[in-house]
Amino acid sequence: MAKGKMIYTFEEGDGKNKMLLGGKGANLCEMTQIGLNVPPGFVITTEACLAFLENNRLPDGVWEDVKKQMAALEKKTGKGFGSADNPLLVSVRSGSAMSMPGMMDTILNLGLNETSLQGLIKQTGNERFAWDAYRRFIQLFAKIALNIPDEPFDEKMKEVKTAYHARQDVDLKADQLKELAEAFLAIVHRHSGKPFPQDPFEQLDIAIKAVFRSWNGKRAVDYRKQFKITPDQASGTAVNIVTMVFGNMGNDSGTGVGFTRNPGTGENLIYGEYLVNAQGEDVVAGIRTPKPIAEMAQEMPEIYDQLIQLHNRLESHYKEVQDFEFTIEKGILYCLQTRNGKMNARGMVRSSVEMCNEGFITKEQALLRIHPSILEQLLVPQLAPNFKGNSLAQGLPASPGAASGHIVFDADTAEARGRSGEKIILVREETKPEDIHGFFHARGILTSRGGKTSHAAVVARGMGKACVSGCEAIHIDDFARKATIGDMTLHEGDVITIDGGTGHVYAGEVPTVEPEVSEELTTLLTWADQAARLEVRANADTPGDAVKARAFGAKGIGLCRTERMFNSTDRLPIVQEMILAETLEERQAALDRLLPIQRNDFKGIFKAMKGLPVTVRLLDPPMHEFLPTAAQLEMEITHLRHLRDTIKGIEELPETLKLLNPGLYQKYADGLGRLNDAMTTFKESHLEEDVIVKKEKTLRKVRSLAEVNPMLGHRGVRLGITFPEIYSMQIQAVLEAAALCAKEGIEVYPEIMVPQVATVEELMRIHSYVKRIHKIVVLTHGIDVQYKFGSMLEVVRACMRAGRMAEDAEFFSFGTNDLTQATFSFSREDAENKFLPAYNETGILQDNPFEVLDIKGVGEVMKIAVERGRATRPDLKIGICGEHGGHPESIAFCHEIGLNYVSCSGPRVPIARLAAAQAQLKGVTAKGANA
Amino acid sequence: MAKGKMIYTFEEGDGKNKMLLGGKGANLCEMTQIGLNVPPGFVITTEACLAFLENNRLPDGVWEDVKKQMAALEKKTGKGFGSADNPLLVSVRSGSAMSMPGMMDTILNLGLNETSLQGLIKQTGNERFAWDAYRRFIQLFAKIALNIPDEPFDEKMKEVKTAYHARQDVDLKADQLKELAEAFLAIVHRHSGKPFPQDPFEQLDIAIKAVFRSWNGKRAVDYRKQFKITPDQASGTAVNIVTMVFGNMGNDSGTGVGFTRNPGTGENLIYGEYLVNAQGEDVVAGIRTPKPIAEMAQEMPEIYDQLIQLHNRLESHYKEVQDFEFTIEKGILYCLQTRNGKMNARGMVRSSVEMCNEGFITKEQALLRIHPSILEQLLVPQLAPNFKGNSLAQGLPASPGAASGHIVFDADTAEARGRSGEKIILVREETKPEDIHGFFHARGILTSRGGKTSHAAVVARGMGKACVSGCEAIHIDDFARKATIGDMTLHEGDVITIDGGTGHVYAGEVPTVEPEVSEELTTLLTWADQAARLEVRANADTPGDAVKARAFGAKGIGLCRTERMFNSTDRLPIVQEMILAETLEERQAALDRLLPIQRNDFKGIFKAMKGLPVTVRLLDPPMHEFLPTAAQLEMEITHLRHLRDTIKGIEELPETLKLLNPGLYQKYADGLGRLNDAMTTFKESHLEEDVIVKKEKTLRKVRSLAEVNPMLGHRGVRLGITFPEIYSMQIQAVLEAAALCAKEGIEVYPEIMVPQVATVEELMRIHSYVKRIHKIVVLTHGIDVQYKFGSMLEVVRACMRAGRMAEDAEFFSFGTNDLTQATFSFSREDAENKFLPAYNETGILQDNPFEVLDIKGVGEVMKIAVERGRATRPDLKIGICGEHGGHPESIAFCHEIGLNYVSCSGPRVPIARLAAAQAQLKGVTAKGANA
Repeated sequence: MAKGKMIYTFEEGDGKNKMLLGGKGANLCEMTQIGLNVPPGFVITTEACLAFLENNRLPDGVWEDVKKQMAALEKKTGKGFGSADNPLLVSVRSGSAMSMPGMMDTILNLGLNETSLQGLIKQTGNERFAWDAYRRFIQLFAKIALNIPDEPFDEKMKEVKTAYHARQDVDLKADQLKELAEAFLAIVHRHSGKPFPQDPFEQLDIAIKAVFRSWNGKRAVDYRKQFKITPDQASGTAVNIVTMVFGNMGNDSGTGVGFTRNPGTGENLIYGEYLVNAQGEDVVAGIRTPKPIAEMAQEMPEIYDQLIQLHNRLESHYKEVQDFEFTIEKGILYCLQTRNGKMNARGMVRSSVEMCNEGFITKEQALLRIHPSILEQLLVPQLAPNFKGNSLAQGLPASPGAASGHIVFDADTAEARGRSGEKIILVREETKPEDIHGFFHARGILTSRGGKTSHAAVVARGMGKACVSGCEAIHIDDFARKATIGDMTLHEGDVITIDGGTGHVYAGEVPTVEPEVSEELTTLLTWADQAARLEVRANADTPGDAVKARAFGAKGIGLCRTERMFNSTDRLPIVQEMILAETLEERQAALDRLLPIQRNDFKGIFKAMKGLPVTVRLLDPPMHEFLPTAAQLEMEITHLRHLRDTIKGIEELPETLKLLNPGLYQKYADGLGRLNDAMTTFKESHLEEDVIVKKEKTLRKVRSLAEVNPMLGHRGVRLGITFPEIYSMQIQAVLEAAALCAKEGIEVYPEIMVPQVATVEELMRIHSYVKRIHKIVVLTHGIDVQYKFGSMLEVVRACMRAGRMAEDAEFFSFGTNDLTQATFSFSREDAENKFLPAYNETGILQDNPFEVLDIKGVGEVMKIAVERGRATRPDLKIGICGEHGGHPESIAFCHEIGLNYVSCSGPRVPIARLAAAQAQLKGVTAKGANA
Repeated sequence: MAKGKMIYTFEEGDGKNKMLLGGKGANLCEMTQIGLNVPPGFVITTEACLAFLENNRLPDGVWEDVKKQMAALEKKTGKGFGSADNPLLVSVRSGSAMSMPGMMDTILNLGLNETSLQGLIKQTGNERFAWDAYRRFIQLFAKIALNIPDEPFDEKMKEVKTAYHARQDVDLKADQLKELAEAFLAIVHRHSGKPFPQDPFEQLDIAIKAVFRSWNGKRAVDYRKQFKITPDQASGTAVNIVTMVFGNMGNDSGTGVGFTRNPGTGENLIYGEYLVNAQGEDVVAGIRTPKPIAEMAQEMPEIYDQLIQLHNRLESHYKEVQDFEFTIEKGILYCLQTRNGKMNARGMVRSSVEMCNEGFITKEQALLRIHPSILEQLLVPQLAPNFKGNSLAQGLPASPGAASGHIVFDADTAEARGRSGEKIILVREETKPEDIHGFFHARGILTSRGGKTSHAAVVARGMGKACVSGCEAIHIDDFARKATIGDMTLHEGDVITIDGGTGHVYAGEVPTVEPEVSEELTTLLTWADQAARLEVRANADTPGDAVKARAFGAKGIGLCRTERMFNSTDRLPIVQEMILAETLEERQAALDRLLPIQRNDFKGIFKAMKGLPVTVRLLDPPMHEFLPTAAQLEMEITHLRHLRDTIKGIEELPETLKLLNPGLYQKYADGLGRLNDAMTTFKESHLEEDVIVKKEKTLRKVRSLAEVNPMLGHRGVRLGITFPEIYSMQIQAVLEAAALCAKEGIEVYPEIMVPQVATVEELMRIHSYVKRIHKIVVLTHGIDVQYKFGSMLEVVRACMRAGRMAEDAEFFSFGTNDLTQATFSFSREDAENKFLPAYNETGILQDNPFEVLDIKGVGEVMKIAVERGRATRPDLKIGICGEHGGHPESIAFCHEIGLNYVSCSGPRVPIARLAAAQAQLKGVTAKGANA
């Protein structure tokens, strides 16, 4: 076996050589060598381990070296191994190149025996602590090194506690612990057939060999098998022998933990807690309350100075905020451990920017150390961090953010009450496009059905509103205007709070904290924009959304869904009139009323986005989405008919009564007359015959529009071809709005985009509408509006034909929601309700492809389209406006295949900006389609 | 301008030089030069035309040449131009390189004047004919050469007819026509200010120039513009001057038309009609009935000999059956025109095979001259050719063939009455998979809704049964068991006849002729198989279908849809039990009962196909297709509840009556008791409480299975993954059936195919089932069954991942129906009902992509899959089993991209075999994906 050096002091070992020294050993060496005051010690190498396992004895000379190193430790510390005065105690720790929970971990206080125990008492002045340490050491050593199970020790402990009426371990006094330790020694003797080894070197010899053997123990072997750890990743374990230091040696001693910066705020101040004259166990046991480190400056100024030095050394070396543990023994600060600190988003952002400004890291490093997704925390309201209530139910975390408000069960009420300034949570079984006006006026949406890509979830994310979807524990009774969760009933108007980041639903109003875009975040994202090649745009459908998107740093609108404008209450009736029209004239009349409304919408959006491009998608959803469902209409018609018959009965009552019983009639004639008058008034205002007729007409239309597979039906450009007047109105509204803005001196860059295109001919047909209308607008308004014309790529065929499409289109935008459906032949709703959960559970699919872009399949189709499109038109602008446009991994792929921009919902814009920068910095460059 | 020779006699002109001589002129030259007796004449070239148009005068020397050629014609014919004895008359015809209806066509009998008219009377002995010819010539010449409109001539004609009480032109006598001709001459004089030109050369000069000028006439120019005829396709028109010949010069004269072979049967016998002593006009006027050419052998044996010579010359030169016109003038047969004869399928097949055997053409030519689609006529029953009745209504020609039978309105009745031997036509609004047992027992299917790719259409084509779909004129009342067409009512049991080739529906039984696979067709298809590279398989779901497919020459089963086996009445209840199962055990119990049934099906198919491969597709459709619809169940439950309540009322009646009126009760007690007993019996046998409970349970299941987009829902391999026990049963049935057959010494080649695969993991999962079950079957049956495992490619993602798929799959089969839906994002049913008609009308799409494979889009996806699959596994077998597999153009594409086989419905197998041969012969070879 290896003939090399098998023992390294922490001053000697190569901090990078984890294979030889193990992860822990290498770390201890590194810390020591960068000048941190680490308790002295040494490492026995993994090679020694392998040699031991081969020959079942320590390699020649190793034991002698160990003894030499122990002597060196005694010299360094001025302590004696087994000394009755000032004993040297050590910890023995295993540590391989990979962290492996299956192996023996740590024996503390090795070197304790009857003699050194007295030394420990003398040094700490704490008899109870010493006996407690001793009895712990005996049990741990027995278990790990001598294979004696825990049970006899635990039984004894119980026995002793019962005898002294101690509820907890900490209630036991020193002499009681002494009694326990002695009993433990007897257990060891009984089980091993030998007395507990009192010679510290015998203890050390046994411990080292036990650690080595644990490498081939069943748990470690199983662990390596399960996690597929191969010999070239880790082979053998090292043994780390570290001097024990004690924080309970008086008022110049102590212990604590700290972050080099505040992990919650990022502030550059050591953050943590410490206890004077205490060991780590005291913190864990909760007997004493630790103090914030800030107080140390007063209480222990010299130690605090050492802590400041430690902080500086740590950060200048690791270039990351560190989470470290320390112990102070008699005025000397020891660093026991350090690792990169886990921080929340605010902390990450501020510390990254400041560490860059302080010269520790570069801008690139600052950008790369933050996972884009965690920025979400900064962009939506959160539950107050100290809130600890229980939730009523948990659904899916469908759109992040916390929101409180009064429950309402339909969109109209949400709008009415929302307009009056009330905070509203819209609660429905599931939502439909016709509910969208309710979304505008709600602070959050809660549904009992539907997945993370249900209508409610997608729309809420788009608007940056909190949403919990698929909360199946809630049973909603629309009609009774109440909902039940288990035994609890919630009535309309009751207040609840939802947390769209976790899916929890709470009763009442839970305090929330509002998001703030900090100065540091602004700085970071500016750096991101400088680093990124991909532009980030936002999906926004209203002027208000556009303003928000711009505030989030969007470089344009990548998707403006014109149909969203159709759904507000003042427009929907006109849209329905347009759909129900039986002649072209009727339809045109409705469109003529919609034109100024849409034009105004576009003006607002263009103004909000002045100087930046705005991509307007022409009408996409099938017409039936703007109408009530057949079931709804059938119910309404039945009720209305019933009501009409009832009223007719009441109207005829006087005549009937007169005929049957004139006396009775005389008596009640007056009252009946009044009832009748009231009925007539009611009828006239609410129940003209044509209400039913209209609803029946609508029902016929709804039935005629019904489709077997609406996802693949009469929608998008197919509507544009079959009803040219609808698209023409929209195109006119866009171009006229642009002309009017341009006249006011506002820079406008409208881009007209056609959805659901499958054939080149469809695109050319719509392009011909645009060209014709453009000419008219130029003549009418006397100003030449510039615009771009392009196509969504969301149909597979369009991607295959991208080369020819690019002759007509100046830009492409991938609609990856629909493209994913078409590429998988998965209907999103059906897949998520029926088989996708099983697919994820059984490992057929790793992710939900509607959340994480499927690079192997959908990505291939995209690559082919990009390649063919650019072959025709090398400067073709290509973007993505599906939900994946806000997902960091998907953004990396978009960067890789050479897209020009991603477009996502407003609140995800900062996330996308950071992800775009990282994609560039990670050196991913555009590759060919067959890469 | 051109200085070349500008006039060619028919003996001189180059028959291939259509640019110079025009199409007609070149043809006349060709006919003359191959030795046919064409009336002599000459051509003035298109170059002369262009020169004339440039300078507005005939090029130097042309008129002199015309006069020389006329002199030559006089010499050749022994007639004189303008002669009073034996006048030479000519026709003047235009003719450019492309046929152009916009140009002046033909002036007949030029050279007629007061003098030559007498000569014509002398020669024909028919004064009426001569005057009629004269008045026609005057009007035509006036119109074409002198620009005098038809109106004054037509008015005069009307006037004369009225005067002589003539109903038709033919009723006018010689002197009346003479009067008309003289009036016509006066009209010409009045309109042109000059007398009608009596000098034949003046007539000729004017006519030639008029023909030349017509090249730049408005109609001709418009025509060239509309059909995008460019100068390199046709430039200028030639003028053909042809001697008139007359078939009415006595009993040694005549006229006729003929085919060189019988166009209906292909028999090698001249087929046609002739009239002795008559001109072509006589045939048109219908005054005399022509005789079959066969009679000529007796009546005019010498002429008949000339006809035989003509036949031989035509076929040996043109190598196609010719359709020719002839005139006999005084014992000499002239051929006026010949072209390739239009023949029906039988004629084409027989003549092709015989012409090949006779050495006229090669096998390749024989194969190439028949359009594969026309073979359809030979493979299904046809209406008797002499039937001339009126149809009741017309729907879409959804599946060819004619069928008569008794109307039934549901599948169960169709099965019941069909089993008893009745001929049945299944008539429904539309069909569903649960109707399939009715298809088996019906001779034809008629639906009032649905397109050519509706369920009814697709299934009927698959089975080779006649189908008319979408016949909207028929209103079906299932409940009343009747249908109405306008005022007519058809009751269940009434006989109708449908013609799936035309879409017509007839009352009563129309005689039909059964198909027969002739010896010639068998020969032709054997040649086709030798020539083709693509193999042709059939789609077949039952042993019966398999037998038929084999008879049609299928080289295997390319698609056996196992779910079709689930739909027959003895199986559906078990399948429904399986679907309604609430536990795995219940489901397994149902599957255990299905196993032997499926195994038996497969045994039957394997036996029928012994020695050939059989591709079995595992369950594809979503489960809800095997259950009734929610609406159906709701109606049934309502009715059943009502019935139950009614019965309950009757049961309680005695008690009620006893209480209210004991006297009455006494009187009716007996009757009530009997009624009650009858009720109880009825209830016990038909209305146990659990009938309703069961239906309610089914309804709940139907609702839970409902999908938004079933096409993209829980089906195919997704079912196989979520309910492994279903696929396992099917796999076991296939492999056990193969084992049992193998034991009986039958060669079996089972191929197991997985539908709707989108990911490699799905395929691997099912493959693991197959391998496991295969091991068990081998152990159980003691015989090692060989099988192949493969994947449908009908999901776009699978095509993109074909490289990786091919590691697991030994074969691919494109399912182009679903692949087309996914590539276009078109739902077939919705597209055909909603927007596809408009797309076809407005030219967005040329074809219905569900009928004609979309090569540019779907074809691209296929090419990518083929390329990637073969890169992994060069010997990968790839086929197609969508409906396109039977469509000739689509087959050519499949050949081009290198597929190994196409699979289509049985009756289309011969068509596909011929198309496969043509694809190879047309020299289309496999190309790369980017070709």
